[in-house]
Amino acid sequence: MGLPKIVVLGAGYGGLMTVVGLQKQLNMAEAEVTLVNQNPYHYVTTKLHEPAAGTLDSEHARVSLDDVINRDKVKFIQDRVTKLDVENKQVHLEEGEPLSYDYVVFGLGSAPETFGIKGLLENAYFIRNLDGVRLIREHMEHLFAQYNNREEKSDEPLTIVVGGAGFTGIEYVGELVDRIPHLCKQFDIPRDKVRLVNVEAAPTVLPGFDKELVDYAVQYLEERGVEFRINTPIEECTSEGVVLKGGEKIQSSLVVWTGGVRGNALLEEAGIETMRGRVKVDEYLRAPGYEDVFIVGDSSLIFNEEERPYPPTAQMATQQGQHLAKNLLALLRGGEMKPFRFELKGTLASLGRGAAIGIVGKKKLFGKPASFLKRANDWRWFFQLGGIGLMMKKMKL
Amino acid sequence: MGLPKIVVLGAGYGGLMTVVGLQKQLNMAEAEVTLVNQNPYHYVTTKLHEPAAGTLDSEHARVSLDDVINRDKVKFIQDRVTKLDVENKQVHLEEGEPLSYDYVVFGLGSAPETFGIKGLLENAYFIRNLDGVRLIREHMEHLFAQYNNREEKSDEPLTIVVGGAGFTGIEYVGELVDRIPHLCKQFDIPRDKVRLVNVEAAPTVLPGFDKELVDYAVQYLEERGVEFRINTPIEECTSEGVVLKGGEKIQSSLVVWTGGVRGNALLEEAGIETMRGRVKVDEYLRAPGYEDVFIVGDSSLIFNEEERPYPPTAQMATQQGQHLAKNLLALLRGGEMKPFRFELKGTLASLGRGAAIGIVGKKKLFGKPASFLKRANDWRWFFQLGGIGLMMKKMKL
Repeated sequence: MGLPKIVVLGAGYGGLMTVVGLQKQLNMAEAEVTLVNQNPYHYVTTKLHEPAAGTLDSEHARVSLDDVINRDKVKFIQDRVTKLDVENKQVHLEEGEPLSYDYVVFGLGSAPETFGIKGLLENAYFIRNLDGVRLIREHMEHLFAQYNNREEKSDEPLTIVVGGAGFTGIEYVGELVDRIPHLCKQFDIPRDKVRLVNVEAAPTVLPGFDKELVDYAVQYLEERGVEFRINTPIEECTSEGVVLKGGEKIQSSLVVWTGGVRGNALLEEAGIETMRGRVKVDEYLRAPGYEDVFIVGDSSLIFNEEERPYPPTAQMATQQGQHLAKNLLALLRGGEMKPFRFELKGTLASLGRGAAIGIVGKKKLFGKPASFLKRANDWRWFFQLGGIGLMMKKMKL
Repeated sequence: MGLPKIVVLGAGYGGLMTVVGLQKQLNMAEAEVTLVNQNPYHYVTTKLHEPAAGTLDSEHARVSLDDVINRDKVKFIQDRVTKLDVENKQVHLEEGEPLSYDYVVFGLGSAPETFGIKGLLENAYFIRNLDGVRLIREHMEHLFAQYNNREEKSDEPLTIVVGGAGFTGIEYVGELVDRIPHLCKQFDIPRDKVRLVNVEAAPTVLPGFDKELVDYAVQYLEERGVEFRINTPIEECTSEGVVLKGGEKIQSSLVVWTGGVRGNALLEEAGIETMRGRVKVDEYLRAPGYEDVFIVGDSSLIFNEEERPYPPTAQMATQQGQHLAKNLLALLRGGEMKPFRFELKGTLASLGRGAAIGIVGKKKLFGKPASFLKRANDWRWFFQLGGIGLMMKKMKL
């Protein structure tokens, strides 16, 4: 019973990759590994915009932990973490007894960053987890079903507002562009009675991305009916819609906010220094000042050589998890940890079923080739998690 | 331009069968036939409980009028009838000019009979038309999607209340029994967190039906989790659920009322004598006192030899339409009309995908054979409407 205890919190990209890396190499008597997660499944965050739009069954966007975890080597506890107690080296759970740890890997998901926009948390929807995106989808379909049942047939269109034109926002809008014509047909609604508005506070869509690719995306989406409001912050979100800076009001019963994430509040509550909830980790992915608290995924903050933070992505979290598993093994075996270096392999954004944009290496990609690579990426993730069997099971044919 | 004008109102079973019968036999120069319907399609009322439960795509429960009507012989106007003016022999429309007629066939749908139950019209849903059942389905799925997104996880179950255990009520409950386990799986909700309650004021389920078959249906449905409240009128329906006689309150966000229909209000407004909105027609299906106003379907009232009214059914409306087409041809050609006699061919009620009950001739049917016959009935209707081509198109495989 004197085995070192590794407790991994969260089965997102970072936490799960840590566990998968550990169980591959760990011998039975080396450590006691426990994974804590709220659900018995991992959800594929980079795909959540698809079930949110209803273009993909949500089953395709999750992986049962039973398909991934080796129960001989990893203990799984389905529970919600309520507190990280770094002084007493304990994790508190909603239902179970507190867990003691020698090393904790904090990979709990992020929270929406609302930038203080009034009414957003109360009235908008968030592409955040599986239950949440199912609700977005059903809420949208409910609105379509209501349209022809209105007592008074007005000319008021059915309007969907997407807040934020970053990667998630643009990918979600791309899926909606595919889905809306089907919904119009299914519910006998003329296509021109449905509006899709994408609002972005920054001066451009996909801020920081290559201009040529941004222009391609904007043109592709505008041709399919998307209305952009760029350089236009949302001032308020109400149950009736949004008010934009400058005074434009857009009536909408479905506002989906994709405008950013912040770190998990438990870190701040644990007394760890954070910036927007995220922790600037050291080169070994540790919280500053702690030798036993590792942070992976959206709650970690890593700077590039120009001292600008990398955006939180699945790619980052996956690499962190892979690296951390090796470092933990080294620690257990009395070896040396190696510093983490993020290696950007590429960036791809889908624009619905048929198109995508991206940069891989130094090459810009458009349209179908980018779309194919994006899909291949999904497959690769399933392969990394559960081998060829899981990949085959999840491949969307 | 002196051709006799036949105006058929409503493309339900009765109206559409009249039109189909006429266009088969009518020569071009014999009459001007106009069909008025609110939608460009006929919906198959006897199947509406399936799209309402989500076990059938609503496309399978409708037929485009383009697939049925011969435009060389029948003029189609998509509009809503606002008034029947029997004095001036005119039909008023919401958008178009009034139509004059020599003979009018009134086949407009029924309205829900609420028996004065407080709050029912405002808060309950009705299995009434295609737009309405789509809304029921989406509302239900939305409730399932909301369940795991509740802020406070209470033990409050998701409860569906079906008011009325007549044919529509029982068939709808049968579909829900099939659908609910799938929805539970889809939205990660334990099956025992979903309640399905069927409330009936009469002392039995399927009042007037054979006792042995009723017992079979009740046992079948109870084994699948349906809770019956028989002999129990609903006293009030609110946005929170229903209050039953005796004081039981059932919390529910989805109350579907199937407890009966009354005739279309336009007949009463036209000054024709009605009983619950329905008109006791003469043996030629005419409104009493009018030689040129024929009524078919749910708004007509026909008594059997024991002076009890036949229930309004698709079978009745179909036979009326077929008969009326022949009588109208006789009138046009100077012949004699023949009196209408309803011939009950059988009665079948489905209990979901795998089972049904019914009487055909004097034979009682249970389970799969009844279910097959019920399906065969649907096919027959498509065949009667549009021949083998339409049947093949609509057959649910």
